[in-house]
Amino acid sequence: MSRADLAKQTCSIARAIAYIGDEWSLMILRELFLGTRRFDDFQHFTGMSTHLVSKRLRKLEQQNIVIRKPYSSNPPRFEYRLTEMGREVWPIIIALKQWGDRWLVEEPIPVQIQHKSCGHVTTPELACSQCGETLHAVNAIAILSESFENERRSITKSKSSPS
Amino acid sequence: MSRADLAKQTCSIARAIAYIGDEWSLMILRELFLGTRRFDDFQHFTGMSTHLVSKRLRKLEQQNIVIRKPYSSNPPRFEYRLTEMGREVWPIIIALKQWGDRWLVEEPIPVQIQHKSCGHVTTPELACSQCGETLHAVNAIAILSESFENERRSITKSKSSPS
Repeated sequence: MSRADLAKQTCSIARAIAYIGDEWSLMILRELFLGTRRFDDFQHFTGMSTHLVSKRLRKLEQQNIVIRKPYSSNPPRFEYRLTEMGREVWPIIIALKQWGDRWLVEEPIPVQIQHKSCGHVTTPELACSQCGETLHAVNAIAILSESFENERRSITKSKSSPS
Repeated sequence: MSRADLAKQTCSIARAIAYIGDEWSLMILRELFLGTRRFDDFQHFTGMSTHLVSKRLRKLEQQNIVIRKPYSSNPPRFEYRLTEMGREVWPIIIALKQWGDRWLVEEPIPVQIQHKSCGHVTTPELACSQCGETLHAVNAIAILSESFENERRSITKSKSSPS
């Protein structure tokens, strides 16, 4: 399966992965949330090549995650900003951060999040929208839609599965 | 910069991306959370080649995200399970799901999450650990550690930044 095929799957996780689940899209998104707007800065702060920054920014723009706006007309210069769809990627970046903080770095934590509303430095956690409790894998059941179940069933039927 | 270099950056987001921020690691992690344990099933449900499944499972095992256990000795067969470090990837997969549900699929949502503790189907959201409110990018301030600030400052000093 190719990445383009992933985008056509029933599963929204597979689709989200096809859109932004690669190192360089995620690094550009990190930068956007850190306030980076200009092409050269994306390149500096991510260490990506000009070609790669250009390719990923174009893809993010086509996907409506990023919008390109002129900030100078002579010479023509552009800056990049997140759309609403782009701003909503934030929990993904934060979930990566929380996991990285817990498993991959020593103190001090490289980026802390302060919650504007309450003023405190916060440890963002996934919470249940119904009861407010913190959610963990062990406490969650995945319920698949009929179409996703069917897609998975057709895969196991069409392929032999020695085990 | 290469992916290996990302793993050495101060930023925990960059490190997490280096560990699991690629399409095929994320797809295997999706499968693990859906209960897939066996090599052939990873291949079937992700559409990945044998070579790619093998490479990613080995990497995840080396990173201590996945553990390989024998379930048959003759012939020798193995199954793959998440370690504690692996189970804690869950919020990342769920954040991808929530974003995909909102922006990339039509109803019905392909995977719904039921919260065992309260019994309800839930919409997992990032919440502030201090006040419990839902967290959004617009309501959060990123505070960089001194070492991360220094790393970024040294980048801008060492490179020219025409703008």
